[in-house]
Amino acid sequence: MIATSTKKHNFSAGPAILPQSVFEEAAQAILDFNAHGLSILEISHRSKDFEAVMAETEALVREIGSIGERYAVLFLTGGASTQFFMAPMNFLKEGEKAAYVETGTWSSNAIKEARPFGDIEVVASSKERNFTFIPKDFDVPKNAAYLHLTSNNTIYGTQYQKYPASEMPLICDMSSDMFSRPFDIERFAMIYAGAQKNIGPAGVTLVIVRKDWMGRSGRAIPTMLNYKTHADKGSMYNTPPVFPIFVMMLTLRWIKATGGLAAINRRNVEKAKILYDEIDANPCFKGTVEKEDRSLMNVCFLPAKSEFEAPFLEMSAAAGITGIKGHRSAGGFRASIYNALGKESVQVLVEVMRAFAVKHG
Amino acid sequence: MIATSTKKHNFSAGPAILPQSVFEEAAQAILDFNAHGLSILEISHRSKDFEAVMAETEALVREIGSIGERYAVLFLTGGASTQFFMAPMNFLKEGEKAAYVETGTWSSNAIKEARPFGDIEVVASSKERNFTFIPKDFDVPKNAAYLHLTSNNTIYGTQYQKYPASEMPLICDMSSDMFSRPFDIERFAMIYAGAQKNIGPAGVTLVIVRKDWMGRSGRAIPTMLNYKTHADKGSMYNTPPVFPIFVMMLTLRWIKATGGLAAINRRNVEKAKILYDEIDANPCFKGTVEKEDRSLMNVCFLPAKSEFEAPFLEMSAAAGITGIKGHRSAGGFRASIYNALGKESVQVLVEVMRAFAVKHG
Repeated sequence: MIATSTKKHNFSAGPAILPQSVFEEAAQAILDFNAHGLSILEISHRSKDFEAVMAETEALVREIGSIGERYAVLFLTGGASTQFFMAPMNFLKEGEKAAYVETGTWSSNAIKEARPFGDIEVVASSKERNFTFIPKDFDVPKNAAYLHLTSNNTIYGTQYQKYPASEMPLICDMSSDMFSRPFDIERFAMIYAGAQKNIGPAGVTLVIVRKDWMGRSGRAIPTMLNYKTHADKGSMYNTPPVFPIFVMMLTLRWIKATGGLAAINRRNVEKAKILYDEIDANPCFKGTVEKEDRSLMNVCFLPAKSEFEAPFLEMSAAAGITGIKGHRSAGGFRASIYNALGKESVQVLVEVMRAFAVKHG
Repeated sequence: MIATSTKKHNFSAGPAILPQSVFEEAAQAILDFNAHGLSILEISHRSKDFEAVMAETEALVREIGSIGERYAVLFLTGGASTQFFMAPMNFLKEGEKAAYVETGTWSSNAIKEARPFGDIEVVASSKERNFTFIPKDFDVPKNAAYLHLTSNNTIYGTQYQKYPASEMPLICDMSSDMFSRPFDIERFAMIYAGAQKNIGPAGVTLVIVRKDWMGRSGRAIPTMLNYKTHADKGSMYNTPPVFPIFVMMLTLRWIKATGGLAAINRRNVEKAKILYDEIDANPCFKGTVEKEDRSLMNVCFLPAKSEFEAPFLEMSAAAGITGIKGHRSAGGFRASIYNALGKESVQVLVEVMRAFAVKHG
């Protein structure tokens, strides 16, 4: 009844590859969860079995990220796009200032959605050079409540290698590099991440909030938009997205079993080096962003000649590679090499690039 | 690798039973979707395959519900609890009046969340009699923008058998009886339903909105909370909950194959009659709500003596019955008999009730 075709090398930017073991465990749970004769899709979110899923998922987030009790760990919906306005709505007092860095489409959206809630100051932007670098030298006004960053820019392929030295509390959209490398939670007032890159499927958003920041804005907020609602009820104020959370739990178990963030980061550094080295060496391709700001997650590159684009996509597809067409805003190619993508898939891509150069170089 | 235990008779109030064929197709798609060598959990929401899922899901909603082009069909997140404030935020002008009927916990919440957006008048309530009936004779102020109803009350087991005769545009929370019976869309300005009863798993909310009502309130609304955003982008403004929508599509295919809403309604009427007839005949049990307002979805009943509760739950469990403990607000038992629950499961429950009466009656 259950059949699997030959697996693809999936470089999709998101929703994205998850570990194969996660797919197998998820499929099993859909047919029969915990051998109780019920599907994970038909059980009550108030059942003991699902309460155990919620508890383990939160515990794994805390363990993997070294998140202490000073922070609430929430599982919400609506994606990062909903956090763009929920964060200022919950944290920014009427007329108060917040500082934002603009490094791509998503941070531009975060800025736009924050404006109605306070005095939003864009302290740095890489827009003039098509978001091909991460701004480094900028001042943050001392009276800002927080500094908002986008840690990794999925569309343009840039990533903060280190966060600004400012002592300002950071709010960070980590949607596309969450749990791909270690970070110090103490630097952040809040972190948010749509799950659908490194930590799960589409349909759940991980939000980590400093407890003493909840209610900071003093605004009247609809119940479902108030972080405190979800913190007080363990993300079970209303029916949570049961299956996406379950798959997140399976994915986090895999991250832990793989050795945690330090080990994951080493794997990711190694995979990215293989690919960037080839881009720099191969005459048929060129990188698009400043080398020092290159993302370990989304590797963007262009063909040396525009007529290379179609035949390279064709040759890649023949090798079982999928998802490497660049975003329409950046063009060319984008290979997303998230946690679950194996080194062997990167090596297949590099081999195709070399074969392409032999033929067209 | 994939094993199934003996299936249970699942009377859970939600998340709830879905057709067995849906579980099997969903599990297959997690291992290999459309035989492309990729999981449904790892494909881009912008892929042709997922765009086909979105298009088919919307087409099925329109076909099953006879929803014309005057209405937008949206797939959102955040559950009905998010619609409680989004509806008045989008539709109610500053200071304008809206009428609400209070028939249970969820309508009380809808009233509470609407209050900040206008002059909310509760035109009828069954609260004084613990929500055991549906109010029928009430006036709706002519200057109200809409009348808000909860079509079926999951916790208390009451349901509108027909909607109020008033010509006022209706906004209706149909979370627990959506697509369980026919309805005339022309009576409604908006319908919303968390999927996790009759139409899918937790994690997606179906919203049907009259297009000319979008933007009615004239308020400044965050992008993600504006129905127009999602209508303009076919519910793909941001990454939608891919898998919950896919499972909704499978469930809607099943509803269509079963004969559509008229056939589904006949099945549901028949199942409910079997169970209510037994409640009325059996000396060990009694119904909790007015007979004329009894829900076809959630059948609430009490033991004739409180000491019957534990042994009846035990006897039911031994017969493979799960999910019939009543909600803490109502007590006793609640058998939720949604679309996908077979008549044979209802018959098993009735047999247990009879065997219980032989032993304890």
